[in-house]
Amino acid sequence: MALIVQKFGGTSVGTVERIEQVADKVKKFREAGDDLVVVLSAMSGETNRLIELAKKITDQPVPRELDVIVSTGEQVTIALLAMALIKRGIPAVSYTGNQVRILTDSAHNKARILQIDDQKIRGDLKAGRVVVVAGFQGVDEHGNITTLGRGGSDTTGVALAAALKADECQIYTDVDGVYTTDPRVVAQAQRLDKITFEEMLEMASLGSKVLQIRAVEFAGKYNVPLRVLHSFQEGPGTLITIDEEESMEQPIISGIAFNRDEAKLTIRGVPDTPGVAFKILGPISAANIEVDMIVQNVSHDNTTDFTFTVHRNDYDKAHKVLETTAKELTAREVVGDTNIAKVSIVGVGMRSHAGVASRMFEALAKENINIQMISTSEIKVSVVIEEKYLELAVRALHTAFELDAPARQGE
Amino acid sequence: MALIVQKFGGTSVGTVERIEQVADKVKKFREAGDDLVVVLSAMSGETNRLIELAKKITDQPVPRELDVIVSTGEQVTIALLAMALIKRGIPAVSYTGNQVRILTDSAHNKARILQIDDQKIRGDLKAGRVVVVAGFQGVDEHGNITTLGRGGSDTTGVALAAALKADECQIYTDVDGVYTTDPRVVAQAQRLDKITFEEMLEMASLGSKVLQIRAVEFAGKYNVPLRVLHSFQEGPGTLITIDEEESMEQPIISGIAFNRDEAKLTIRGVPDTPGVAFKILGPISAANIEVDMIVQNVSHDNTTDFTFTVHRNDYDKAHKVLETTAKELTAREVVGDTNIAKVSIVGVGMRSHAGVASRMFEALAKENINIQMISTSEIKVSVVIEEKYLELAVRALHTAFELDAPARQGE
Repeated sequence: MALIVQKFGGTSVGTVERIEQVADKVKKFREAGDDLVVVLSAMSGETNRLIELAKKITDQPVPRELDVIVSTGEQVTIALLAMALIKRGIPAVSYTGNQVRILTDSAHNKARILQIDDQKIRGDLKAGRVVVVAGFQGVDEHGNITTLGRGGSDTTGVALAAALKADECQIYTDVDGVYTTDPRVVAQAQRLDKITFEEMLEMASLGSKVLQIRAVEFAGKYNVPLRVLHSFQEGPGTLITIDEEESMEQPIISGIAFNRDEAKLTIRGVPDTPGVAFKILGPISAANIEVDMIVQNVSHDNTTDFTFTVHRNDYDKAHKVLETTAKELTAREVVGDTNIAKVSIVGVGMRSHAGVASRMFEALAKENINIQMISTSEIKVSVVIEEKYLELAVRALHTAFELDAPARQGE
Repeated sequence: MALIVQKFGGTSVGTVERIEQVADKVKKFREAGDDLVVVLSAMSGETNRLIELAKKITDQPVPRELDVIVSTGEQVTIALLAMALIKRGIPAVSYTGNQVRILTDSAHNKARILQIDDQKIRGDLKAGRVVVVAGFQGVDEHGNITTLGRGGSDTTGVALAAALKADECQIYTDVDGVYTTDPRVVAQAQRLDKITFEEMLEMASLGSKVLQIRAVEFAGKYNVPLRVLHSFQEGPGTLITIDEEESMEQPIISGIAFNRDEAKLTIRGVPDTPGVAFKILGPISAANIEVDMIVQNVSHDNTTDFTFTVHRNDYDKAHKVLETTAKELTAREVVGDTNIAKVSIVGVGMRSHAGVASRMFEALAKENINIQMISTSEIKVSVVIEEKYLELAVRALHTAFELDAPARQGE
């Protein structure tokens, strides 16, 4: 008998019919003898509807009051599911974040969980009840309702699993697991049975948006086994867990991630003095622009070229900031490019395998794809290439690292 | 500087535009220097929408879970109004029933308020904030969300006013006060400046559905001055208060109430033995049918006729129950009539005036209206008449008791 936390997102509870389907699934697990805590999001579209309502009153809703409104979305779904379970003869009870209670800080609209009281839930589980908890919300020490920010239901699920020392936290989504790369780009992409937290973090931040990054970090920190599954299809999904002793069979890389949302900016001919990186990125950061890859070329004639990538939406803003900085630093010029894509190979296996990066570069060279930037970490190598080569690059790398599904290799 | 509790119903907060209008009104009071606690209902239609949602899952929603869903309606309006006030530069904060906290018993869907913690609200008022409270809801000692039942927001308003010892509880509605009778029936009906709690109770239960009976009872018990006002029109409304020393000018009766929702049932030729009333009404009550007027005629040949009225919706059910009882009691027959109406004159003034009832009967006799049943209390005389005479009877009584508006008397 296991203790499982199951989280269903907005699409999975988007209609009454879907809530009934979720109830069927929960019932199946319960009848198999598992203790269950179910975390729900609001019905898909409901959170937006509530925010729009608030925006009709004011463009800048007071964060505290916005949380009071928005938190009603999950409050409705949890009670509906509890009803649906009770109708099926499964004892169940619903709790809001306040009722659990899920204590957070007071950062309304983006609160962080500080502590979870597991007493009530343990009592209910002991009494044979399924506990249905509102995701995405909590309460601060003064009793104010808080929300964790968009997608925070994943975090609620993981935090509950950690607090209850659950055997597994299952995140139900509209995909049946984590793939070696996007199956829309590479038909031979394969579902991974297992992936480490670190790999998942690199995959997630690079564009495989299956799970909230924060939830994966949380799960890694507290070592909560996380499983990504399809809400309405059967299947084992993908288990995200710690990096157990590396077996011989471990693949070198687990997946190919990519991202088309970035743009590249280069400041050329910057006098190469200590602190120049800060002088360039300080104003960017002050303008609230997130920077992803950063590359500084070796100095040449006492000047250097400094390149970084930002989200495409921030490109114009970043360009302006950089123009000002360029004048102050007497740099030669600022150039930029929005037609780029980032492709990354990710895998804990590369730690123990030399030559992974060069194998990547070789595969790209074979396809005549020029590499504009390179950035490496312990379990990831990322390159920036021209956007139009993205699909070609991903397919080439998928094959080069032997990730293609065997059954389909003949296609 | 007064402390005022203001309650706005579902129609008054039915749209964002109306919530803005409520904010304007609250701002006006605040700027006049009053301390304000505002109690809100859900947007009109929202509570029904939420109940319908629950009914899609199950015909018999678990009461605890239904309260979790339904209570979200007010949670949305309170935060919207708080936002609208803050936008106007009026510091404000919203509280759910749980946050206040409004402690109730655990009778989900029809809970009763046990206690209100006034600490938080007093702190906010002291700090110059308008406090916006969700009506209709509370929390039981175990932290379960409860609702007070339909229309319970009036009760929340009065209970808060009592707990805070407010100077006045203002109930904003879609009428500008309590009238001597329904203006749709009698054009000369007048708005009353003042009415006693007792009179209001008799008026309310008889069909002038301005206020929840429970709220009036509550207000009377704790002597909370209650004022009925129009949400979007200016005017003094009607003050409902205790019966202060009777002045010379006090009118004999305050208003004419009426009701078309009842039906009459008579069991004829019942052997007149002790306990016969209970034998007749016991089974009716056991079938969950509310009885209003009850008349038992004097015994004749050791049998008696026993007549009572019920809501028309319960007529068929009551008739069946009565048929069974009639057989058991060897009564002669059961007859009934659904084409009846009840007309009542209400007024604390009749206590000190003799002949009020006969003046009523005289006025009806002049119009050739036959009286089928009579029932009297200290401050009320009710008669049952044929339904088609209702308007005629109300107009005749309104004139006979000098309630017609002087300005319009020439009409």
